[in-house]
Formats: sequence, structure tokens, C-alpha cells
Amino acid sequence: MEKQTENGPTTNTIPRPTNPMVTPLLTDLYQYTMAYAYWKAGKHHERAVFDLFFRRSPFGGEYTVFAGLEECIRFIANFKFTEEEINFIRDALPGTCEEGFLDYLRQVDCSEVEVYAIAEGSVVFPRVPLIRVEGPVAVAQLLETTLVNLVNYASLVATNAARHRIVAGKSKMLLEFGLRRAQGPDGGISASRYCYLGGFDATSNVAAGRLFGIPLKGTHSHAFVSSFMSPDEIVEKSLCSADGSTTCQDFVGLVHTWLNKIQRTRLSIGSFGDTNLSELAAFTSYALAFPNNFLALVDTYDVLRSGIPNFCAVALALNDLRYKAIGVRLDSGDLAYLSCEARKFFQAIEKEFGVPDFGTMSIAASNDLNEETLDHLKKQGHEVDAFGIGTYLVTCYAQAALGCVFKLVEINNQPRMKLSEDVSKVSIPCKKRCYRLYGKEGYALVDLMVGENEPAPKVCTNQ
Amino acid sequence: MEKQTENGPTTNTIPRPTNPMVTPLLTDLYQYTMAYAYWKAGKHHERAVFDLFFRRSPFGGEYTVFAGLEECIRFIANFKFTEEEINFIRDALPGTCEEGFLDYLRQVDCSEVEVYAIAEGSVVFPRVPLIRVEGPVAVAQLLETTLVNLVNYASLVATNAARHRIVAGKSKMLLEFGLRRAQGPDGGISASRYCYLGGFDATSNVAAGRLFGIPLKGTHSHAFVSSFMSPDEIVEKSLCSADGSTTCQDFVGLVHTWLNKIQRTRLSIGSFGDTNLSELAAFTSYALAFPNNFLALVDTYDVLRSGIPNFCAVALALNDLRYKAIGVRLDSGDLAYLSCEARKFFQAIEKEFGVPDFGTMSIAASNDLNEETLDHLKKQGHEVDAFGIGTYLVTCYAQAALGCVFKLVEINNQPRMKLSEDVSKVSIPCKKRCYRLYGKEGYALVDLMVGENEPAPKVCTNQ
Repeated sequence: MEKQTENGPTTNTIPRPTNPMVTPLLTDLYQYTMAYAYWKAGKHHERAVFDLFFRRSPFGGEYTVFAGLEECIRFIANFKFTEEEINFIRDALPGTCEEGFLDYLRQVDCSEVEVYAIAEGSVVFPRVPLIRVEGPVAVAQLLETTLVNLVNYASLVATNAARHRIVAGKSKMLLEFGLRRAQGPDGGISASRYCYLGGFDATSNVAAGRLFGIPLKGTHSHAFVSSFMSPDEIVEKSLCSADGSTTCQDFVGLVHTWLNKIQRTRLSIGSFGDTNLSELAAFTSYALAFPNNFLALVDTYDVLRSGIPNFCAVALALNDLRYKAIGVRLDSGDLAYLSCEARKFFQAIEKEFGVPDFGTMSIAASNDLNEETLDHLKKQGHEVDAFGIGTYLVTCYAQAALGCVFKLVEINNQPRMKLSEDVSKVSIPCKKRCYRLYGKEGYALVDLMVGENEPAPKVCTNQ
Repeated sequence: MEKQTENGPTTNTIPRPTNPMVTPLLTDLYQYTMAYAYWKAGKHHERAVFDLFFRRSPFGGEYTVFAGLEECIRFIANFKFTEEEINFIRDALPGTCEEGFLDYLRQVDCSEVEVYAIAEGSVVFPRVPLIRVEGPVAVAQLLETTLVNLVNYASLVATNAARHRIVAGKSKMLLEFGLRRAQGPDGGISASRYCYLGGFDATSNVAAGRLFGIPLKGTHSHAFVSSFMSPDEIVEKSLCSADGSTTCQDFVGLVHTWLNKIQRTRLSIGSFGDTNLSELAAFTSYALAFPNNFLALVDTYDVLRSGIPNFCAVALALNDLRYKAIGVRLDSGDLAYLSCEARKFFQAIEKEFGVPDFGTMSIAASNDLNEETLDHLKKQGHEVDAFGIGTYLVTCYAQAALGCVFKLVEINNQPRMKLSEDVSKVSIPCKKRCYRLYGKEGYALVDLMVGENEPAPKVCTNQ
């Protein structure tokens, strides 16, 4: 466990929580009624130890990825009330509250609080304290709800991302596309951040890209495609070649030439009739805007009869100007089948027109993907290189909450525990140390919890 | 539908979004790549119409409560880029982006955007546009992800709250206790806000109380109870009577006297032995801090053999000083059974000691409640007056996302629709008006969508 002690707020250089809404008021009212009662009883300074842990790994799985610690540290390091917050607390407390308590709150910070925690991003297991908070009981108590809130969802979604990564395999690109379906703005921002920590490669969320330096990915939507009527709309038709040596004055015409070539050629994939021209216009426009990064959503009308041939016509025109298209995205239909057909088409183009690497064009897939559908796709066989995953990932649809708790385990050096008729809710008393034991082969075997003052486990050399 | 048009940002008095993280960057990257492509194609000013709607009501139900509109309006009304944001967009766009586009973004706002929406809090149905956005295609497109994010979870959790209210019945108090398990800080704040809109009475979330004026509720936790060792710890033992006329010098002693009386008396509920004294100390301390608002969590040790008798001793001591205790909270075990036994005990106390209304003492229950468990409790019969509901409510565990979408339905007065192999994903083109038709008895019969220029439905008088 790493130890992080705050040494007074005046010299504090730890930044504030990323979300400005994370303040000492982001907590349950009872933390304040308890703080007041502790203060009235003269108990508020008593030294308490709380463990933050969860009781069961999510998604029916055997592990959890611990996340949210940095925000907890930021919150603790900057814990201080504004006068406005203190006034609100006065009004929020039931009955009349003595001014002395508010004076006490005015000087509260976490300078007497010690935080011990497992490193963020670690794989962790039930009942092991992820964070241990030691400090004056009233202050430690005030931190409870916020810390639990910051760890719960962060760890849940990081674990979800890790599970998706394991199913998808190391070679696939995983993109988090969940912002629009996330539980509120910062459900979205947290999702992007902690999915990246859990093993995703990039996000579509621009704000998360800016805040955390996560790589950003995205192309265009169906609306973009359907906003075009025909290629006649395109006014600026010229495109300079990639090396700047020549300029094609009529890129739209070049695309048409290629479309005709593809249509006339008997590709192994079979023939097709007229493609949708509004789609062709949209793709052409997008290529004119991003000739180095042409990636097209191909399922607005018909993937195999329109989207793929239109994409290929534009990609081949780009190729004439030495640009290399990136690929396509599928957002509906039978993703396994469509990706395989698209791959065959690309390979046929490569062969027919002698365009190197055209067959390895990237195929991205989205549309309500989750751990289960990734697994199904794998079993069916597919040609998808990148998965864009949203709703099920970021809302943790399969289990929308991790039950992190924050339990008093010691006060004034006396062990405390919560009893319950529900055995799983009984807490383990005392300050603990936790060791992860590794076997000879370097794999973790077990996490061992011992009392703070018990001897550390020793390596047995004569096995 | 109400119309809300923004008339230029300079005279704008609509406040910014509640969460400062709601900025024009809180969107998918592809909104910017599309905006750039529209701009490159000279199409960015084209007048587009988008509908925001959902395809199916959540939780297998037949209705949805529409929420999130106010935040959408705040976002739209204040939509404007900072120079720092523009610099980030320049870096985030793939390839090199022309400066002219950034100059365009510098002057973008929503002064040319019109928003039509159904009133927030309305009961709404699938496929009816909740919000219609009309404006320059590039700008309307930039709003998409943020609007969908702001409406999706807000409407989902408001609907969830309304469903809990319907199952619980009008007479029960419903308290939202979900902050610690919510999906991130503003998952928690949004949950509190929209559960209140959906029919809850109060929240434990202090920040939500301050931001939205939602009544706050809360008492104490198990940690508070287990932090006490014995009543000897209590130093300040005096309590002034409610009317200020007398002062009891030893409230702790008075509580003990009552506990002994209860123990000696053969109450109809049956006898019990010694209660837990650390619990008694905690309750006494809490009563000394909040004599007018004494509400105790009674399940830290044993509800019927310790929690309830200890509570009654303190409540009777308070009664001697003319204070009226509020009641108890149960957080584990068989809530139906325990609430009925607690009620009998309170009634026996009322009868035995002649304390008026003691039998109607409030009983609150919490512990992983949801729509289903509320229903089970109702069927079993219970004596609970107030339910504290957290995890399942705020994370919308039964269905963690509402599939709101934002679809292009018109551009340059031309209808547009999205085709799909998945029929449910096909969008309904054209600008629409929606009417809710009421029968003679005043009940809503059906929502009728017609084209913008079609005549309004007429009341048929000669049925």
C-alpha cells in the first residue's frame, strides 16, 4: 500500500477535483448531522480508522480494477469549506445548530487525515481495503460518501472495460463511444477516463480527450450522409495530391470514374446496381475534408450494394492522389457477415486494380456491442479490426453499481465492527495490512490480510 | 409544444449549465469532423431539422417522464467557444484543418437555432419528438451528443422514480439515498434532481439540496453507533426542555431510568434482556444534539432486542422534556416483519405509559430497495412510513440506459430519413407537430403526430 499524507492545505499543490461539483457538500446530510453530534459529544477529535472496500466483484466475475483514487486524493487534499457552504450547512441541519460547530467546520481540513491506498489501476479483490482513511472521526466521516461515489463507478467501469478487452483480444482496437448514453455529463467523462485505464485505446469524447489526454476517434454519422442530396452539391471539387505535386481539378469526376470501373468489373464479390448518390456525395465531401483520414460509415442505405462500393470508389480516387483511406464503419445488421463480405470486396479490389494493402482496409463495427456480443462475434468469425462500444460499456448495463462501502474498523485504538443479520454485511474490525503473495513463477497466488501489528508473511525458501 | 428561441448571446440571461463540465467540448469528435466537412463543402449554413426522441419506454413500461430540458436550454443558450477550446479542436481534428474553419467556430452560437420542446416533467411516449432543433446543420449537429446525454439519464431516472412512487403509493415518504452508488458525482446530483421531479419527497444529497432546493433528509449511520463505547463517554449530559422552562441536568440518567422501566414492564411485545450500551450512548448523544429531530438507525446490533428498546428509552426521556421523537430507520433484515414488530412495540409503549401518538412513530426502511421489493413489501403487509432508496433507483439497475437519439428529419425543406435493416431504427422524416388528444372524461387517449403543415385535429362534437 502507498501512503499519502496531507501536510496542511496552505502548501498544497495537489489540484482540485476534475469535476468542480465535487465539493464537501457532495455528501449525504447524515454526515453533517453525525459531525454535529460528534462535536456536541466532544468526540469529534477521536482518532478513527475507516476501510473502503467492496464485498463482491462485479459482472459475476472474480476481479475488479481499482480506479478513482486520484480524484479521491484531490478531494481530500483540497477539503475546505467556503463561507457559503457553511451557511448552507447551518440551514440544512435540522433544528438550531450552535455557532461553535460552524466555527469548528471553518477550520476543518484533512491535515490530520492519513490515507493509505492500493495503487490506482490494480486488480483487486473483495473485502481487501482499497483505501484506509485514518483521522478525526468527524472529518473521516465527512469524506465517506464522496470517496465511495468517486471509487464505485470508476472501478466498475474500469472493470467492465478490462472485461471487454479480454474478450476482444489484444490485437483489436477498442473505442469508447458512450457519452450520449452515459448517466449524466460526468458519467460520460468518467467513463471515457476509466475505460482508457481499463484497456480501451481511444474515446469519442472530446472533453475527456482534453482533460486526460486520451486519444480521440470519430468519423461521421448517418445524419451527415443523409444531409447530402447528390454530388452536384459539391462546389469545391479540386484536391491536391498527398505530396503536393499535382492537383486534381475534379475529384468528384474521378470518384465517378472509379465507381463506373468498379461497377463494370466482375469482381469476385458479385455485381451490384446503382449505388446511392447522396451517400456518394457525402463520402466524397468527407474525403475532400479529410483526404488523409477517410473513414466512412457505410450502412445508411445498404452496406453491400451501396456503402462499400461507394467507399471503394472514393478510396481508389484518393489512392490516385497518393492518399491512403483508413476504412469503414458498420453500425447495423449482421456485423460478422457484413465484415467478412466487406473484407472480400476489399481484397477483390486489391487484386483487380493492383492497389497494395487495399484488402487490409480497417473495418470498425458499432451498434449496441457488449461483452457477450463480442464473444458471439468471435465465435462466428469476423473481419472487424476495431469495435466502437457505448451504452452497455459506460452504463455497466450488466450490473450498474459496485457496492463499495466505508466502514469504521477502529476508534481510539479500539477495534469496531458492524454486526448484521446479513452475514455478508458484517465488517472485519481492526487496522489491516494486505500482502499479495506471488508464487515462484511470478504469478499472484493470494491476497493476505493481517493485523497492522502482526508480522509480515515470510518467503519460505525450502519448499 | 413550447417554443424557445435564442435571440443572440449578448443579451442572454439564461444561466449556464449547472455542471461546469457541460461545454461545447462535451461531445463526440465526429461532430467536429462533420462540422469541418460541412464547412469545407459550403453546406454548414443549410437549414436542418433534428428530432430528439426515444424508441421504447424503459423498464418494460408504457411511459417515460421527460426530463433534462432545462439543462439543454442552458447549454444551447450559452453555446460559445473559448479560444482555448478552439485550439484544442484544431489539435483534435485529424490532419490539418484550415484556419477559416476555426474563424467560423469563433463566431458560432445558437442565435440561429430554434428549439421546440415538450414541457419538462411531461409523460411522453416513444417516437414523439421531445425536442426539435432547427438551425444551421453544422451547429445543430454540434449540439447532438450533449443534448442526448442531458436528456437520456435525466428522463430514465425520473421515470424510475415515478415508477417507485406508483408502487409505493401516495401516502409513503420516498427518500433518494443514492449518491454513493451513483455513476459519478453528477450521476448523483442528477439522480437527486430528477428523482425529485419524478415524485420523490427528499434526498440525502446536500449538494443537490443546495443547487435545486430539494428537501434534505438524513440521520446517522452504523459507524456513528459503533463509534460509541458506553454512556459514560457522554460528558455534557444536560438538556433544556422544549419550551425552555426547565433543564434536565442528567439526561443520560433519565434515559437509563426509562430503559429500566421498559425492561421491568411486561409489554405485550414480550420481554428482552440487556440492550447494547454503546448503541444507547449513540442514541442519547444524537438526541442531545437533535432533541427536536431524533431519528435512530436501530439495526446496528439487534433491532428488536436492542435497537427498538434503546430508541424508546431515549424517546420517552425526550418526551418528559416535551420533545417529540421522529422515529426509527431499519437498514437490514426482514423489513416487513421488523416494521410490524416495531409498530406493536410503539403501540404497547403508548398504552403502557400513556404517551399520546407514540404508536404512530415514523418507521423508515432502507437496504437495497427497488420497485420489486416495494411491491413485495406491500403484498406482505408492513408498517413502513418512509422508504430510503439508493442503488437500484439512481443507477436504474433494471435498465441502465434510455436509448434517446437525435435524427435528421429535414434539410433545406427536404424530408430526410435514415433507412436501416433494423426496422426499429428507421426514422420518421419531416417536421412534425404532436397533439395529445383527450376524451370527454378528461383522460388522455392518444398522442397524434401530423406534418407541420397538416391541419390540426378537430374536436368532433356530435359523437
